[in-house]
Amino acid sequence: MSRYLSERYTALKPYVPGEQPRDRQYVKLNTNESPFPPPKEALDYAAAHARSYELYSDPEAVELRKALAETCQVPAECVMVTNGSDEMLNLAFLAFGSEARPALFPDITYGFYKVFAEVDRIPYREIPLEDDLTLRLEKYAGKKAVIFIANPNAPTGLYLPPEEIARLAQRSPDSVIVVDEAYIDFGGTSCIPLTQRYNNLLVVQTFSKSRSMAGARLGFGVGSEQLMRDLQTIRYSLNPYNVNSYTQALGIGVLRCADEIRRNCRTIIGNRAYLTERLKTLGFVCTDSLTNFVFARHLRLNGGALYQMLRDRGVLVRHFELSRIRPYNRITVGTREQIDRLTEEIERIMKGL
Amino acid sequence: MSRYLSERYTALKPYVPGEQPRDRQYVKLNTNESPFPPPKEALDYAAAHARSYELYSDPEAVELRKALAETCQVPAECVMVTNGSDEMLNLAFLAFGSEARPALFPDITYGFYKVFAEVDRIPYREIPLEDDLTLRLEKYAGKKAVIFIANPNAPTGLYLPPEEIARLAQRSPDSVIVVDEAYIDFGGTSCIPLTQRYNNLLVVQTFSKSRSMAGARLGFGVGSEQLMRDLQTIRYSLNPYNVNSYTQALGIGVLRCADEIRRNCRTIIGNRAYLTERLKTLGFVCTDSLTNFVFARHLRLNGGALYQMLRDRGVLVRHFELSRIRPYNRITVGTREQIDRLTEEIERIMKGL
Repeated sequence: MSRYLSERYTALKPYVPGEQPRDRQYVKLNTNESPFPPPKEALDYAAAHARSYELYSDPEAVELRKALAETCQVPAECVMVTNGSDEMLNLAFLAFGSEARPALFPDITYGFYKVFAEVDRIPYREIPLEDDLTLRLEKYAGKKAVIFIANPNAPTGLYLPPEEIARLAQRSPDSVIVVDEAYIDFGGTSCIPLTQRYNNLLVVQTFSKSRSMAGARLGFGVGSEQLMRDLQTIRYSLNPYNVNSYTQALGIGVLRCADEIRRNCRTIIGNRAYLTERLKTLGFVCTDSLTNFVFARHLRLNGGALYQMLRDRGVLVRHFELSRIRPYNRITVGTREQIDRLTEEIERIMKGL
Repeated sequence: MSRYLSERYTALKPYVPGEQPRDRQYVKLNTNESPFPPPKEALDYAAAHARSYELYSDPEAVELRKALAETCQVPAECVMVTNGSDEMLNLAFLAFGSEARPALFPDITYGFYKVFAEVDRIPYREIPLEDDLTLRLEKYAGKKAVIFIANPNAPTGLYLPPEEIARLAQRSPDSVIVVDEAYIDFGGTSCIPLTQRYNNLLVVQTFSKSRSMAGARLGFGVGSEQLMRDLQTIRYSLNPYNVNSYTQALGIGVLRCADEIRRNCRTIIGNRAYLTERLKTLGFVCTDSLTNFVFARHLRLNGGALYQMLRDRGVLVRHFELSRIRPYNRITVGTREQIDRLTEEIERIMKGL
């Protein structure tokens, strides 16, 4: 670091995204991307409708928000779009977190929450998951906080039904509850309808997973008009033109292909069952994931060692060097071919031991 | 605002971007966009080379940074890309601003500096421009600060030669100097080469103006390896995938069309002279702008009233309700046709008075 770096950040540990190595072709099962490209019709729509690039993108994203509002069945005033859902999450930390309203989130969850809290200087507390990695929302109820709940949670894959979130929102009128639904389309039910009932609820979704747009960067939030106005204030104080014109158009295009996206999700859900079954046969224990990844530990193999051996063999999965989940690897649900390649490599590794 | 908004931000005034009205077709001379679309060759390059959208964009932007490094003749380690240059500027506030190193910038300059300082809670001081709107860098020398200098300055359009920036960098070893060169390609000389001599100098540029990519959102910074590492730490703590795949590819495409971009800039410089001449004939005083806009006040017409009358007639320019520059309007240099339309409307307005 230089001698000019603010003293606030000399100990800051940035988020570590999944590797994007370039040294060789990997079977890439480490960043929960979709194995499907965006629908051709969506790409055609974007090519035909993106505003000419010499003009600024629409800072209000009027057309895209209208399309999202229709999909989500909420007023457009309740929708905001961001440059990936990470930006949306950070805006929520900034807007609602403070000394008076610290952030709360599980000790095992999306690693970025902690980083946002650190960089934004918002006090935070990590609340331990249960021993079986489940999340008990009662622990968050009745406080004055900004609460971040990934649902399903990452990297555990475990899911809570909307009724439990509704109860938390109701029991915590002094808290803002942010439900990060990055993985909701793989079997869960969204809390978006609840945002019209609880004015302290913000639901965040992404186009990076089920909607095959990780590289186009698009996230969005849905909440009460009041909450959204606050978030707009911060967004307009940081980057009003945050979502580029191409991505705005592609987002609309993908929303118009809802059937294809749903089919893709069903395929992934089927492949998840197939992957889980194969892993169990090989001696793994898997959490009951409702996402596009499987969280698996082997009864004998060391998690970190398995990650490394797979990497050496050209298969990338994600391993977290964190106590309690060190035995696990997070494996994106890919195509059948990718799953077969993965399990073959695991078999070879086991034979070699 | 909701009762959940952090008390830090209850008085926050967001940046107000130029209007993007949708009620009718305007001659849009209010946001300093290029009148030229990106080169066709660049669009073709992007279509052929953008990474498939289901995969995350390259967080290191290796190819784009390589292309930028070649263009700027600096090592790739000295280059970082962002989602528009606003993001780069904000990262500089965050990384280098602190109680110990407050921000300094002119009282009349790009309006976002003040907003970034407010939202990031960095103490700041605005240093008045001279009465003739020129910027005296001596006022910034020898302090411990993070200094933001738009060069050319906005909305005055006035330019300082690199020698003056070099002198400031040399005389201010405890300060970081951020030179915002959004408008440098319209007649100025970049300070980028100086970044290899002064390790406290960061130069920020954008693809939004001369490079016809406002809607694709791409900015970049060039500085010493040390400064860039600090900025990377913050970037990776906020949005590692900040630049989408399409924009990364389009940026490379546009850099490959340097000749066409230079021709466009020459055309705009020619049109600027034409616009300035026309305005002078009509009784305006213009600053000596080295940008793609003209900053003009009429000897008799009120600035705000002129803005409004032009708007009513379908011509959008930018007016700032700030003391000292209230008599002025900032007018983007458009095509000859746009300029003629603007000056015709001004003539009609003057006849009608």
